[in-house]
Amino acid sequence: KKRYNIALLPGDGIGPEVISVAKNVLEKAGFLQGLEFDFQEMPFGGAALDLVGVPLPEETSTAAKQSDAVLLGAIGGYKWDKNEKHLRPEMGLLHLRRDLKVFANLRPATVLPQLVDASTLKKEVAQGVDMMIVRELTGGIYFGEPRGITIDENGEEVGVNTEIYAAHEIDRIARVAFETARKRRGKLCSVDKANVLDASILWRKRVAALASEYPDVELSHMYVDNAAMQLIRYPKQFDTIVTNNIFGDILSDEASMITGSIGMLPSASLGESGPGLFEPIHGSAPDIAGQDKANPLATILSAAMLLKYGLGEEKAAKRIEDAVLDALNKGFRTGDIYSPGNKLVGCKEMGEEVLKSL
Amino acid sequence: KKRYNIALLPGDGIGPEVISVAKNVLEKAGFLQGLEFDFQEMPFGGAALDLVGVPLPEETSTAAKQSDAVLLGAIGGYKWDKNEKHLRPEMGLLHLRRDLKVFANLRPATVLPQLVDASTLKKEVAQGVDMMIVRELTGGIYFGEPRGITIDENGEEVGVNTEIYAAHEIDRIARVAFETARKRRGKLCSVDKANVLDASILWRKRVAALASEYPDVELSHMYVDNAAMQLIRYPKQFDTIVTNNIFGDILSDEASMITGSIGMLPSASLGESGPGLFEPIHGSAPDIAGQDKANPLATILSAAMLLKYGLGEEKAAKRIEDAVLDALNKGFRTGDIYSPGNKLVGCKEMGEEVLKSL
Ligand SMILES: CC(C)[C@H](C(=O)O)[C@@H](O)C(=O)O
Ligand SMILES: CC(C)[C@H](C(=O)O)[C@@H](O)C(=O)O
Repeated sequence: KKRYNIALLPGDGIGPEVISVAKNVLEKAGFLQGLEFDFQEMPFGGAALDLVGVPLPEETSTAAKQSDAVLLGAIGGYKWDKNEKHLRPEMGLLHLRRDLKVFANLRPATVLPQLVDASTLKKEVAQGVDMMIVRELTGGIYFGEPRGITIDENGEEVGVNTEIYAAHEIDRIARVAFETARKRRGKLCSVDKANVLDASILWRKRVAALASEYPDVELSHMYVDNAAMQLIRYPKQFDTIVTNNIFGDILSDEASMITGSIGMLPSASLGESGPGLFEPIHGSAPDIAGQDKANPLATILSAAMLLKYGLGEEKAAKRIEDAVLDALNKGFRTGDIYSPGNKLVGCKEMGEEVLKSL
Repeated sequence: KKRYNIALLPGDGIGPEVISVAKNVLEKAGFLQGLEFDFQEMPFGGAALDLVGVPLPEETSTAAKQSDAVLLGAIGGYKWDKNEKHLRPEMGLLHLRRDLKVFANLRPATVLPQLVDASTLKKEVAQGVDMMIVRELTGGIYFGEPRGITIDENGEEVGVNTEIYAAHEIDRIARVAFETARKRRGKLCSVDKANVLDASILWRKRVAALASEYPDVELSHMYVDNAAMQLIRYPKQFDTIVTNNIFGDILSDEASMITGSIGMLPSASLGESGPGLFEPIHGSAPDIAGQDKANPLATILSAAMLLKYGLGEEKAAKRIEDAVLDALNKGFRTGDIYSPGNKLVGCKEMGEEVLKSL
C-alpha cells in the first residue's frame, strides 16, 4: 500500500467544515485505489493567530514542507481585518506559498452543464466555458522589493511596491502553461500589459521565445484590460491563460464568477518539486460559518487536484471528479448553487452524497 | 458669443471618422446654445508617427495645452505594433495625459434600456447598471520609477516597474471621486489590494481619512479581485468606484463590456485646471476603419462630456445626450449595437440622425 502524508490546514470560517468533508472523500477515494493517508492537521490563518499569535506558525510551515501535499480550507475573517499587515491571515497564505515555493497556481474555471443557470451570463455565452488560468504565484508585485510606506523629502507619505520578474521566473511559469495547454485544447493566451509595463515587455518576449519548443501549442498575447473584457464578451475563446501574480489574481476571480459557481472551483499551487498546495478558490465566508451551509465541492475537487497534480494519482482523482458529477446529476445542491427542482442539502450531506457516489 | 478653442486629435483607424461626425454635433449643439468653437486638428498617434516620426509631436502637445479642451478619436494599429516602446502610438497617449496633467479619468458605464440586450449578461443583471469609474490616470505603475529591463548580477534579464502613490496624489483623485459620488447616488467604493500591497494600504488610509469631509457620501472599500467578481455578479451595487491607474484600466474595461455597448461609452480626463481630454473608451478598430461602419456615439457622448466637464456648458451637453437618446429611440443602430427590428446605419448616417435630433 502506498502511504502519503497530507498536511491539513482548515483555517477559518467555513474552512474547518469543508476540510472535514473533503478529508473523508480523499480518504475513501484513496482507499479504493489502495492508497493510505496520514493526515496532520495544523493551525493556520486566523485560527493560528488566535492560538499562537502568528498566521503561519513555524510548526505549520515545517509540517507543510515535510508533507507530500497540503490541503487548505480558507482563511480570514472580520475579526482580524484590522490587524496590522504582518498579523493578518492573508500574510500567512503569502508566506506559505513562498515557503513551499509554489510558483504555479492552476485555477480552472469550468461551467458544468448542470450549473449553467448559476452564471449571470446568458446561457449561450456561459455554456461550454472550460478554461485553465495559470497564475504566477511567488513573484511580481506581491513580493517585489523595495516596498513599504515611507516619508519623502517633502515630509509626505509615499506607498511603494515593485513589480519585478526575472527571466527564469517567467520561463518556468510559461513552461507549466505550455505543458498545461498541450494536455488541454492546445491554445495558450499570455496576458500582460506590454504596451505600458517594462516587466510585461520582458514577460511577452520570454513567453514568445519558448513557443518554438511547443509547436503543438498555439500561442497568443493579450493585454490585461482586453482580457478582462473578452472574458465577459466571449469566454469560450479561452483554453489556457498564463499571466503574472496580480493580473492572475484579478482575472482568475473574474473567470470564476463567470462560471457562477465559485463554490465549485478548486485550485492547485505547484513548485518545481516538493509538496503542492491545494485549496478552494472561495474565501472563508464568515457569515455562514458553522451553519453547515457551505458548499464543500470546491474543496473536494481540490482534493482531486491534490491526487492528480500533487501525487500523480490520476485514477483516484478521477473517482472524486466522477462522484461529484454523480451527486450533481442526482440533483443535490448546496444553497449557493441551488435552483428550483433540485434537492437542497447542507455541507455534510453533500459530502455524504459524494461518498456514496464514490 | 462665447468662443472656445478645441484641439481635435483624430488619431488612427476609425478615429478620423468618428471625430469628423462628433465635431459636427459639437458645433451644432454649441451653436444652439450661443457657443462658437475654433477647431485645431493635430496629428497624433500612428498618424503622427507616419508624418513626423513621433506619436506626440511637440506642436500637438502645445496645441492641446493651449486649447480649452481636447477631443481625441482613437490611436493604434497593427502597423505600429512592432515598434519599439517609445515609438508606439500608446506612448503618445501616456505622454499627452502627463503633459496635460489629467489625473482624473471618469469612465461611465451605463446600460441604456434601449441597449440592454447587447450585454452578454442576463437582462435582469444588466438592466439599470449605471456606474462611474474614477480612475487615477497620471500616477502609479504607469509612470513610477525605477522602471526598465536590466541585467542582474547573474547576467539574467529582469523587468521592473514601480507602483508608487504619494499621499497628495491619492487625496486629489479621492476628492474628485467623492464629489462625483455626491452628484450621483452618494455611494463611493474605493478599490485596492490593501491585503497585499503597501501602496494600497496608504491608498485606503488616505481615502478613509477624507470620508469625514463628505458625510453625505457612503464610502466602502473592496479588494480588486473581489471587485472584478462583483462587477459580474451584481453590477447594480456600484454607483461610483475610485481606484488606481492599473486597476482602473482593467476594471473600467470590464465594466464597459458589461454594458455590452462599448461603442457607446465616452470618457473624460481632467486635471486641477487646464484643458481636459475627452475620448471614447473604444480603440481604433483598424479592421473596420474607412468603411463607414464605426459607431460614432461614444465620441459624440465624449463631446457632451467635453461640454459638461471641460467647459461647464451643461445645457449644450444635455442637448447632445438627449439627441443621442432620441436617435436610439427612433431605432437607428450601427452594426455593433444592431439587433433585429432596428434600422442599421453607418457612421455618417448615425451622425446625421443625431444632428437632426439636436
Ligand atoms: C488572500 C489574498 C492574499 C490572495 C491573493 O491575492 O493571492 C487571494 O485573493 C487569492 O487569490 O488566493
Ligand atoms: C492604450 C493604453 C496605454 C491605455 C491605458 O492603458 O491607459 C488604454 O488601455 C486606456 O485605458 O486608455
